[in-house]
Parts: sequence; structure tokens; C-alpha cells
Amino acid sequence: MARIAVVAGDGIGPEVVAQARKVLDAVLPGIEATEYDLGAARYHRTGEVLPDSVLAELAGYDAILLGAVGDPTVPPGVLERGLLLKLRFEFDQYVNLRPSRLWPGTTGPLASVKPNEIDLVVVREGTEGLYAGAGGVLHRDTPAEVATEESLNTRHGVERVIRDAFARAGRRERRKVTLVHKTNVLTHAGSLWARAFATVAAEHPDIETEYQHVDAAAMFLVTQPQRYDVVVTDNLFGDILTDIAAAVTGGIGLAASGSINPERAYPSMFEPVHGSAPDIAGQGVADPAAAVLSTALLLDHLGHSDAARRVTEAVAAELAARTSGTPRRTADIGDRLAASAAS
Amino acid sequence: MARIAVVAGDGIGPEVVAQARKVLDAVLPGIEATEYDLGAARYHRTGEVLPDSVLAELAGYDAILLGAVGDPTVPPGVLERGLLLKLRFEFDQYVNLRPSRLWPGTTGPLASVKPNEIDLVVVREGTEGLYAGAGGVLHRDTPAEVATEESLNTRHGVERVIRDAFARAGRRERRKVTLVHKTNVLTHAGSLWARAFATVAAEHPDIETEYQHVDAAAMFLVTQPQRYDVVVTDNLFGDILTDIAAAVTGGIGLAASGSINPERAYPSMFEPVHGSAPDIAGQGVADPAAAVLSTALLLDHLGHSDAARRVTEAVAAELAARTSGTPRRTADIGDRLAASAAS
Ligand SMILES: CC(C)[C@H](C(=O)O)[C@@H](O)C(=O)O
Ligand SMILES: CC(C)[C@H](C(=O)O)[C@@H](O)C(=O)O
Repeated sequence: MARIAVVAGDGIGPEVVAQARKVLDAVLPGIEATEYDLGAARYHRTGEVLPDSVLAELAGYDAILLGAVGDPTVPPGVLERGLLLKLRFEFDQYVNLRPSRLWPGTTGPLASVKPNEIDLVVVREGTEGLYAGAGGVLHRDTPAEVATEESLNTRHGVERVIRDAFARAGRRERRKVTLVHKTNVLTHAGSLWARAFATVAAEHPDIETEYQHVDAAAMFLVTQPQRYDVVVTDNLFGDILTDIAAAVTGGIGLAASGSINPERAYPSMFEPVHGSAPDIAGQGVADPAAAVLSTALLLDHLGHSDAARRVTEAVAAELAARTSGTPRRTADIGDRLAASAAS
Repeated sequence: MARIAVVAGDGIGPEVVAQARKVLDAVLPGIEATEYDLGAARYHRTGEVLPDSVLAELAGYDAILLGAVGDPTVPPGVLERGLLLKLRFEFDQYVNLRPSRLWPGTTGPLASVKPNEIDLVVVREGTEGLYAGAGGVLHRDTPAEVATEESLNTRHGVERVIRDAFARAGRRERRKVTLVHKTNVLTHAGSLWARAFATVAAEHPDIETEYQHVDAAAMFLVTQPQRYDVVVTDNLFGDILTDIAAAVTGGIGLAASGSINPERAYPSMFEPVHGSAPDIAGQGVADPAAAVLSTALLLDHLGHSDAARRVTEAVAAELAARTSGTPRRTADIGDRLAASAAS
């Protein structure tokens, strides 16, 4: 039986994770889950972000379910670099998977797009690029100050994430992969990405391919999101594009994500894209849908694709049945989803 | 009288620039304009992108009006790096100005946003960041290949563009500046941007300020574009965000831009954001609105704010009067705009 680590985290994290666990227990009874106390609260209490001993323990799990970490009182970068990105990098989670669907029963902000018309997945590189942390500051706070950030891209890292994108496209209906980069300006990294993409594409003559500059893709995600199936892109572009994709499908409240090591050499991590939302924490009104959808990605990753499908369908049915204006309680939604996914 | 250089360029460039010149002649009779043949066509004919002698000549003008350069037959980067970015960098055009309005009479893709509710301007840094071209490729086409891109940020470059943003906000009604960066991941450059922003903000207690991560800003530009007044950001983030802003205000067909050296030590350059659109070139159907609005930015930069206002109002009236489905001829629109702006 699978063993997972649960990092409920801060703000609404614990509330939504509690619902995700209800659903997990319902579809996979006997799954072993161990709670880890990490995030802003622990940082304030102990000064620790991710002790080495905890990192070593986490490495032993099959997967990690994360709620949300962060709080405005923690300086920028501390939890991001020290916890989230540390886990992505240490556990070689090179596929950052972010599906976006406009679910039946929901309305996005776009006047002309109907439910089911958006169904895309962004395969964002998770272990390289500008997220490597390379760079520095010289002559701080003087007129001569200079600050650098370096994007590091390896053939190894780029090609493997592109391979993953093509493999996913091969399992989908439309079988199309869009590469997004900025090859006309970032000519060095762009050239590597374009050549690696061409190599992998040549091995998949059955899959349609296209290339777009990141600025054009950002625009088309707003004007024609229907055109995308699988999008593969670098770490920073993926960060931005997935928030646009979330926005056009009704906001990050429904967006799920997985930071995946496809070979399962290390645990993969699943988390809603939304943050800790301190403003609504503790009121029992947070929507657990994104956390539950992240659980479906977790199940799929662990090979329980049937359970994953049932969880996803339970969320879809829940969203389709929602009537606007009806007050929603986090725990009730979790109960309904657990019951519906179990059956 | 002002002397301007005109680079009509490729595709629809010459068609839309012809209309912009009609308007310019109408509001500023006697303006001296000299045509320069640059772009994909010249590159294919002569192999030249921007000869040093032409660069030196261009330096003598008060401003440059550009239509569009580029063609799918030119390798990525050649015209971008060799012409557009070369001019931005050589002429120290550090303010890349991109206003976005949802004009009366037009409909954007967002169901809940009404005309006039979006009225923002992005002040994008134009001479630094990842556009510096720093980086390289090693072990090309081997498994050991690595490619880098380096973002270079100076206190000098960052502070001056932030100052420009605050100055512009001070001349607008809402007096608000949003800094967009990714300080939680790009901690080195982010720290420089945040500290420079704080310094300039402290000198402008009358101006409201806020900070957003680029992913959040990309999302809010879709879900709540009304909230923005002046946005200041780095070169690459600005590239992406301005295309989103264009998308939510009806597409890049209406988006104008200026690459500005505010001190007028060098000529500034004004161009529609749209490209050369080879698919519709030569048919006389391209919309010259973005080129004409870019001309308004040019007039404003040269101190002819009254003429600039008349041109902008002419475009606004033209857009408000458009009935969907009516065929539009590029030259007719130019004639109407020239007549209306002149009066
Ligand atoms: C919190 C931050 C480090 C993170 C990122 O930039 O990857 C977040 O925005 C995300 O998309 O998961
Ligand atoms: C053509 C390209 C170099 C350019 C840029 O990236 O700045 C364009 O996208 C723009 O926004 O003006």
C-alpha cells in the first residue's frame, strides 16, 4: 500500500488537505499518510524551513500531498526557495504538470468560450532555467549596483521534459504539443529548446507540433485557449502561462498541479496552485476542489488511474451541480466528494 | 520642425505606415519624413540588417516611426536582435511604453469588462534584463549540452525606468504604480527592483503603490484588468504582460508602443505592437489604428501633446463608429483619421 507524506501547511492548507484526505481514504482505503509540519507557522516557531532530517525522511515516501505554504509575514523567497523549490530540485521533480479545464457548470471570464472547450495541460520544466538560483548582487545599494539572474538549461533536462510532454500527448485525444519559448530573443536557450524539441518530434510523427513565442502564447491563451492540447515550456514561462490558463478557466481556485519525477526515483509532490489565502483561513469556506483534483493527479501518478478518474468525475459532478450564490462549506464538499468518488 | 525617419518594413508595415503619415501630415504640416528601407526584404536582397552607416544616420532624427519588420523566411533572432533590439539598445530607449485601453465601441474577450474600464499603461524596461543577449551554448548537440541566458540589471537602469513610471503616474488620474517582478524566485534581481522601487516610491508619497509577482499579475490582467493604472516591470515580463493587456483590450490590432529615451539624447521609436502579418499583406485590409495610435505617442514625446490628443480622439471616434461586419479599407480609414484629427 502506498505511503504518502502530507504537508498541510498554512492558512487554508489544512482545511483543504483534510478534504483531500477524506477523498483519498474513500477511494484507496488503507493508504498510509503521515503529517509533516512545515511552512510559515513552523518557520516562525522554530526558524526552520526544511531540516535535512525531514528532507531525508520525505525521500522515503511514494508521494507528497501539499496544501499551501506561505504567509505575508515571511520574507519573500524564504519558503519558496527553502521549501517548495528545494523539494522540486532535491527530488528531481522535472515535470511540473498543470492541467486546465473549463468544467461544465463553471463560467470563465471569456465571453465566447463554453465549458469543455478548454482542456489543456501545461508540462512545465521544474528543475532548471531561471529557477536554478544562479546569480548575485554586487555593489548593493550604490549607484554601481548590478544584479544578475542566470537561466541554466541542459540538454538532459530539456529533452526529458519534452519527452514527457510527447508521451502525455500520445495518450490524449488531440495529440498535439506546442513548444513555448522566446527563441527570437533568448537565442542560446531557445536554440537548445528548439533543437531538443525537433529531435523528440521526429520520433513522434503521429503527434502534431507547433511553436509559439511566449508573448504570443500568453495572448492566445486569452483569445483562443481552445487551440491548446499539451504545452511544453521552461520553468518561468510555465509559471506565468499556467496562471493565465487558470485565469481563463475560472481562477486558481480550481487549478491542480503535480511536481513529478516520472521515473519515481524520488517522491512526486501534488498541490493546489492556490496559496494559503490567510484572509479566508479558518472560516471553513475554502474550496477544496483544487486540492482534491491534485489528489487525482497523485493517484494517477501512483498507477491508480481508475481511482484518479473517479475522483476527477466526482469533482466534475460537484461543479456541474453548483448553483451560484449557495453558501458552500469546505467540509460538506469534502464529504460529498468522498462519497461520490467511493461509489 | 521635427525630422523623423520612417521604417515602413515588411508585410502590412508599409500599408499602415502610409496611413500614419497621412495623419501626421494632417496634424503637423511640414513635418520632414525620410524613408529607410530596412527589414526582411532588404535582408534577403542584400544580406544587411542594419548597416553602421544607417544606424549613424538614424541617430540624427528626432524620432523613428516603424511599421513592422519580419517574415517567416528570416531565421529567428536575425531581425529582432539585429534591428529592433539593436535600435532599442543603441539609442538607450529604456522606456518601452505600452498603453492599453478598452475603447468605446470595441469589445474585448472578457464578459464582465465594459469599454473605458481598462485604461492602463505598462512601462517596460527596454535596455536590460534577459534582453542583454548575455549567455551561450556549450557542447552543442551532445548529451552534455548546456545553454545559458543571463539577466543583467543595474541600479542605474532599473531606477531610471521606475522614475519614469512614477512621473507618468503623477500625470494620470488614478496615480497608482504597480511593480511586477518575481522577487520570491528571482531573489537577486528582484531585490534590486524592490529596493529601487521603494526608494522612488518614498519620493512620491502622493502616489499609491503595490507589488505583484508576475504570475499573479498575468492572472489579474485577465480577471481584474481594471485594477491597473501604471505597471512598471522588467524587459521580459513587460513583453509578456503587454501582450496579455493587448489581448484583453481586443487584440494586438489596436496596441501602440513607444521605445523611448525620455531625455531625447537619442531618437525614440514608435511602432504598432502587431507584426508584419504576411497573410493579409498587400490586400489593403490591415487596420492602421495601432500605427496611428503609435504616431500619437510619437507626437506626445516630441512635445505636441495637443496634436497627440487629437489623433487619439480621432481613433477613438473611428472605433466607436465601427459597425461589425462592415468591410474596412486601410486607406479609407487613414483618410478619415487624417481629416478628423486635422480639424
Ligand atoms: C511559490 C512559487 C515559488 C511558485 C513558482 O514560482 O513556481 C508558484 O508560483 C507556483 O507556480 O508553484
Ligand atoms: C520582436 C521581439 C524582439 C519584440 C520583443 O520581444 O520585445 C516584440 O515581441 C515586442 O514586444 O516588441
